[in-house]
Amino acid sequence: MNSSHPSGSAGFHTTPVFPRGFRCASRNVGLKPTARDLTLFTSDIDAAAAAVFTRNHFPGAPIILGRETIRGGSLRAIIANSKVSNVATGTRGVEHARRMAVAAAAELGTSADRVLVSSTGVIGVPLPIEKIERGVVGMTADLQGDPMVGAEGIMTTDTHPKALSASVGDATITWVAKGSGMIEPNMATMLSYIFTDAALDAATLDRLLRDAVSGSFNALSVDTDTSTSDTCVIMANGLAGTVDEAAFAAVLRAGCVRMTEILARDGEGATRLIRVSVKEALSDHEAHIVAKSIVNSPLIKTMVHGADPNVGRLLMAVGKCFDCTIHPASTSASINGFQVVAGGERLTFDDAIVRETLSRDVVDLEVTLGVGTGTAHAFGCDLTKGYIEENAAYYSS
Amino acid sequence: MNSSHPSGSAGFHTTPVFPRGFRCASRNVGLKPTARDLTLFTSDIDAAAAAVFTRNHFPGAPIILGRETIRGGSLRAIIANSKVSNVATGTRGVEHARRMAVAAAAELGTSADRVLVSSTGVIGVPLPIEKIERGVVGMTADLQGDPMVGAEGIMTTDTHPKALSASVGDATITWVAKGSGMIEPNMATMLSYIFTDAALDAATLDRLLRDAVSGSFNALSVDTDTSTSDTCVIMANGLAGTVDEAAFAAVLRAGCVRMTEILARDGEGATRLIRVSVKEALSDHEAHIVAKSIVNSPLIKTMVHGADPNVGRLLMAVGKCFDCTIHPASTSASINGFQVVAGGERLTFDDAIVRETLSRDVVDLEVTLGVGTGTAHAFGCDLTKGYIEENAAYYSS
Repeated sequence: MNSSHPSGSAGFHTTPVFPRGFRCASRNVGLKPTARDLTLFTSDIDAAAAAVFTRNHFPGAPIILGRETIRGGSLRAIIANSKVSNVATGTRGVEHARRMAVAAAAELGTSADRVLVSSTGVIGVPLPIEKIERGVVGMTADLQGDPMVGAEGIMTTDTHPKALSASVGDATITWVAKGSGMIEPNMATMLSYIFTDAALDAATLDRLLRDAVSGSFNALSVDTDTSTSDTCVIMANGLAGTVDEAAFAAVLRAGCVRMTEILARDGEGATRLIRVSVKEALSDHEAHIVAKSIVNSPLIKTMVHGADPNVGRLLMAVGKCFDCTIHPASTSASINGFQVVAGGERLTFDDAIVRETLSRDVVDLEVTLGVGTGTAHAFGCDLTKGYIEENAAYYSS
Repeated sequence: MNSSHPSGSAGFHTTPVFPRGFRCASRNVGLKPTARDLTLFTSDIDAAAAAVFTRNHFPGAPIILGRETIRGGSLRAIIANSKVSNVATGTRGVEHARRMAVAAAAELGTSADRVLVSSTGVIGVPLPIEKIERGVVGMTADLQGDPMVGAEGIMTTDTHPKALSASVGDATITWVAKGSGMIEPNMATMLSYIFTDAALDAATLDRLLRDAVSGSFNALSVDTDTSTSDTCVIMANGLAGTVDEAAFAAVLRAGCVRMTEILARDGEGATRLIRVSVKEALSDHEAHIVAKSIVNSPLIKTMVHGADPNVGRLLMAVGKCFDCTIHPASTSASINGFQVVAGGERLTFDDAIVRETLSRDVVDLEVTLGVGTGTAHAFGCDLTKGYIEENAAYYSS
């Protein structure tokens, strides 16, 4: 990874493990034909917790319930189903989400207000709650220590399960997440669960989580569409005792960035990871707008997909940020460190070099605006026929 | 066309014709291998003129020159080339644009400040000005009365030439335009030329043009990307005398909307025209934001492409307008008049009906927000593999 990107230095475990006291299980309960569609993540003891949710005006029923649940600041478990998102389902949908929490709590011997519920899948279809209520019975016996089992259970169009872990002193942080479309621009991952055995209270977790999310999941965009189900939650059960807060915050941020890159790279139909850095903007806010404009531009995304050296599109994408301070004469741009634009003009270069660099698995686009000190990063992917295929028949498949 | 859309009632000529005194010519001058790549539009006498241009911060050299030229309020001709857009080419690019105006003026026996220059094509490549200077010589002899000849000359990825004409009293209005990617959100068409023999002064033309563009070209989006070359110009040579201004304004608006629909339907790779109506928003401004969010959503565009009844995506696209006033309980939506959402919930319906209506050539998506009296329309197209194909190798093809 390029050292200019914030995930560069974290040391992740070769194989992801859970922190002390966390386990998970997943199984098929009949929502999908055969794939795992119901997942439990548990802590052996109550864990301090914090969460951030989608800003979409049509939040799913689990989000409505989750905002209420997380106020308690304490969780024992997360229950998540795939295939049906329980969104746009009215008061009955919220009742179904509550029943899902009650069913998980009964199975685990805790109370429903300690269970966070997630659902992901098609919008506007009633949740088959009876299948979930029946299906969760006996799942305690399946609980085990491999986070990949839970990661697999929450997949929708993801092509692979996603989990990471890293150490902070004696403690461990573990990330389990799924993508991979309808991702932007606030809470970019639909479901991202973070577990740690560090001892941190709910208020501290909330602050650290919001900080980590702002530079990672909130900088990710697959397709400009914002899910109605986005959820990022952190649980800290304290079994490893206290940790250095600054060190914890740094590893938390790095893991969120790394997971963001993993999600972007596995965006629907994606073949490349695109990382955008904007420097010398008037403000961080304007840098963020420009970075998002670049990472979301269909013409940039298809240029990267085709490894086509049509680099003038970078200027187009910067220039369409109408309300930002842009001075063509001070604007420069590079691709994987190879400068292609200076003073607002496309440089003369060997097309073959740019074709080669645009063909890499990770494409770093850097734009320097020369008008201030604002910086921002954004993460995305190329736009391919695979995206069209997956989304032209998602409901029906 | 649906009567709820503003182009419904205008009477367009079966075959487009020019107003009195306008002619055009186009030929191949070697920018492309064989296709027509240089086009002239002329008026026999000086015409009052007005124009609006892209808001992109990196306007092409022809835009920089055009803003200067249009201040005179009078034009005799437009010269346009395709293949190379003369954007991001610095001061030499502006010199090339000036030389292009001088060459056309010399050929036509007028002055360069009466010639508007347009270039469309790849960004960041030097304009082959000598080919244009040599190629324009003798074009006066080719001038003729079929606007389709000029429409063909300005095509890039358009699949067909685009011209329209309509009568206003004794006068005629003729629209010649090209699309079809990098279109949004201000000055949606890259090049749109409007000719009339009505007698109207430059200030009046400017006012009427801005009014007409706001509800048409500025409501069009193919891919959220804003061209650096967008130009919409109107020339009025007065040979038909005065007209009723209100009648003229109405036909001008209707023709701009119709041309917008034609451009949207021929968006890169498009197979369907999508028209969005938003009603009962808090304000027209918020209605416009919501309409653009719907028409730009990749998940809506792919849903229409696949005729997949995943209508919950309509709520997702409304709900991601974070700063707009949205009340789920008062939100409803319909597709070609068939209601699919009420009170923020997806209705139960026969999927086959929605599949059928989403399969039509024109798909009208209507959302009613129930929070005010603001309305807006937006125009777009579906997202297909054809878009990917065209844009993953545009530079190289």
